Amino acid sequence: MTPEVVLVGTGNLASHLARRMIECGVALVQVFGRDPEKTKRFCAPLQIPWTSHWEAIRQDADLYMLCVSDQAIPVVASLLGKQLKEGAFAVHTSGATSIEVLAPFFERRGVFYPLQTFSAGRSVAFEHIPVCIDAAAPGDLELLRQLGGQISHRVAEAGDEARLTLHLAAVISNNFVNHLYAKAFQLLEEKNLSPSLLYPLIEETARKVQEISPLASQTGPAIRGDQRTIDRHLEYLSGFPDIREIYQLLTRSIQSESL
Amino acid sequence: MTPEVVLVGTGNLASHLARRMIECGVALVQVFGRDPEKTKRFCAPLQIPWTSHWEAIRQDADLYMLCVSDQAIPVVASLLGKQLKEGAFAVHTSGATSIEVLAPFFERRGVFYPLQTFSAGRSVAFEHIPVCIDAAAPGDLELLRQLGGQISHRVAEAGDEARLTLHLAAVISNNFVNHLYAKAFQLLEEKNLSPSLLYPLIEETARKVQEISPLASQTGPAIRGDQRTIDRHLEYLSGFPDIREIYQLLTRSIQSESL
Repeated sequence: MTPEVVLVGTGNLASHLARRMIECGVALVQVFGRDPEKTKRFCAPLQIPWTSHWEAIRQDADLYMLCVSDQAIPVVASLLGKQLKEGAFAVHTSGATSIEVLAPFFERRGVFYPLQTFSAGRSVAFEHIPVCIDAAAPGDLELLRQLGGQISHRVAEAGDEARLTLHLAAVISNNFVNHLYAKAFQLLEEKNLSPSLLYPLIEETARKVQEISPLASQTGPAIRGDQRTIDRHLEYLSGFPDIREIYQLLTRSIQSESL
Repeated sequence: MTPEVVLVGTGNLASHLARRMIECGVALVQVFGRDPEKTKRFCAPLQIPWTSHWEAIRQDADLYMLCVSDQAIPVVASLLGKQLKEGAFAVHTSGATSIEVLAPFFERRGVFYPLQTFSAGRSVAFEHIPVCIDAAAPGDLELLRQLGGQISHRVAEAGDEARLTLHLAAVISNNFVNHLYAKAFQLLEEKNLSPSLLYPLIEETARKVQEISPLASQTGPAIRGDQRTIDRHLEYLSGFPDIREIYQLLTRSIQSESL
């Protein structure tokens, strides 16, 4: 029997999770959102019951899933906890937040963290996204494992520390990588060169790392110790002090790997 | 009429270029390589004539393409120039090297730089790779444009400065990005977590940047100003001083974008 889920939140992650759960036959029985207009718009195309009133939240769901910003989790958990009977099971969906943030409000608590970046209007291949789960009780962990398995091929148990590691690694390989893309694009745009010239390289770099260890496959002037090219790049970057600093640090870091 | 090409070099780029040229019906009439065994192994499966003797280099080719390391270009160009008649046309294939490095040896000189990372044993979709061309004479530029168009959908003229910009942007979005992947993988492996958990995120990050400006789509604790999460990450990284330094610099750099 598939568990009945109430989703709290109407942001990007909530939207992707809601659509995927419905696609996979999960019983998403209600969505709660503070803003009635937004919540209505969110739920209408998916034909899910919704509410903006804490008093109207479903009492009998098997799982309450908090898809709200990290900062909002304690407040929302507190408001939700007040409405529900003893023994309700709540999870948050944050990579950087301890499961224990829920402890004052829910004895049955857990985490359901999909390791991906979600943007409005972009669909992602959810079946490949690792869902990282944690729960205070073994039975609840099993419920999350089943639910995770319904929406993804990959479910991984990860306690607070492992999840923090995963979140940090995600920040590095998503947020920081995206920032490097922004810097590279900025250099091209300054010279009226199209950033699209980099697309094949960016794609190949992301694919190659899935087949060859990035440490083993590192190329470029830094690892080659090609100081002439490094000097030409640094001279070029004299007008871009922020990029120059990043260039110097990452070059040094690459070179320290090869020692 | 398709130009007759002699390729000098037997490395990764030479291998990818040779296979692609043959696939596209380019008249690759000879390969030169210093090491006879390696050159033979390189040419046998492709059925291309080869030599390891400068005196045996073909005299009548329309184009001599130097696929050698940046540092080797002047030496190889000098040796090649001595063997050829006045009026031979030579190009190098380096992003970071001026066209003028060829000037002492070739009046007809140019550059044929495919903007991609090439690895042994990995095939790439060559038709999408931008080929950046330059030549001292307009007629020669036209020859390179035609040749580039035979092996790729995308040919872009780029003089020394534009090519240096492209090369620098490529270093940032390939070498540096790959290094960030290596650091993220290192953190996971320390905790016995599989780096493959990051693959969907890495792929989505590389795809998203092709549709949404990376500046506009930046997410994460840095741009949100989420100091609590940043502090948790920095505390975690106290055992990884090199990653910590990168984390701090990139966080600062992302935050300066949002000012």
